[in-house]
Amino acid sequence: MNRKAEARDRILRAAIDTLATQGFAASTARAIAVAGGFAPGVIYYHFDDLDDLFLAAMRYTSDQRMERYVECTATAGDPSSMLQALRELYAEDVATGHIAAVQELVVGAGTSARLAEGVRAEIARWEEYAETLLRRLTAGTPLEDLIPARAAATAVMAFYLGLEMLTHLDGDRARGEALFAAAEPLAALLGMLLPPPGERA
Amino acid sequence: MNRKAEARDRILRAAIDTLATQGFAASTARAIAVAGGFAPGVIYYHFDDLDDLFLAAMRYTSDQRMERYVECTATAGDPSSMLQALRELYAEDVATGHIAAVQELVVGAGTSARLAEGVRAEIARWEEYAETLLRRLTAGTPLEDLIPARAAATAVMAFYLGLEMLTHLDGDRARGEALFAAAEPLAALLGMLLPPPGERA
Repeated sequence: MNRKAEARDRILRAAIDTLATQGFAASTARAIAVAGGFAPGVIYYHFDDLDDLFLAAMRYTSDQRMERYVECTATAGDPSSMLQALRELYAEDVATGHIAAVQELVVGAGTSARLAEGVRAEIARWEEYAETLLRRLTAGTPLEDLIPARAAATAVMAFYLGLEMLTHLDGDRARGEALFAAAEPLAALLGMLLPPPGERA
Repeated sequence: MNRKAEARDRILRAAIDTLATQGFAASTARAIAVAGGFAPGVIYYHFDDLDDLFLAAMRYTSDQRMERYVECTATAGDPSSMLQALRELYAEDVATGHIAAVQELVVGAGTSARLAEGVRAEIARWEEYAETLLRRLTAGTPLEDLIPARAAATAVMAFYLGLEMLTHLDGDRARGEALFAAAEPLAALLGMLLPPPGERA
């Protein structure tokens, strides 16, 4: 990576950290510069304005997480191993600040039509991905025609964003962990009821 | 209702309208007073400070909506009529500004520990209610032991709050309506599979 790309990366990471830890309203050029250890002017050498930086930051974290999601769910054929993969991916979403930054950008999108448009596009990308995953899990099973995959993907996105709001309100991550734990017996049962991927029509 | 209670009600309704239409950050004493058509000083005759008003407004809208939820779901025994009741209640949540105001208060709770505590208590009340509803719907059916009611209630709360975030981002209510429509065939199927309430063990 050349020096310009390295500097750009550093700004994007600083923007994500600042959004995740300080929130959208506090994510000024100054705050992002302090978090990244560079002068505020550096931001404007790489980005037109803060909206431009936020949009690039959303794509940056989204791309990185999408790569991990595709990688980790690729081998998960049955509901239990899919749940296990999603649980680990969710823990990474938390640890990297991804989910907190995205939630702040969704809230902050109310301040700018351009930001809203970019955030909507990223949400749509994740919705499509969730739909693909769901279709793959249910393909060749009785659930295939039963679950409206597009609507279920929307519901999953809403749930994911809302869980982050509740987590923020609680001040701890117990709620998310309890949900994954509670889903385990259901996933195991579903795994027993559904034909394994190899034996599907 | 005496004149003091009437004035208090008017302030509470103005606070909910302002939160719902202008957002938490813009809900100053002045903005609420303009919305309600009274002098800002009137607020401080009835409430200690804005947090005190926001907490009272959250309980006020929550009490009113809870009363409607209990009333409208009381006669809904099967999944389809429950879904229909919830769809109408959700439309009311939207029309009254309830859901938008609550979402703003959940976001705004980050600014004050006292506000956060009050919002958490209201969320917990709705979570318990959702759990009760779910247990009533599944009582005496094979789903009773299958669905972890507490975790499912948490998931429903997260979904409800997240849907409002996405709706805000979209700028229209199409997403929520599509979800209710997509859930209808599922509810109908579930109604056919589950024993009717009168014939349960």
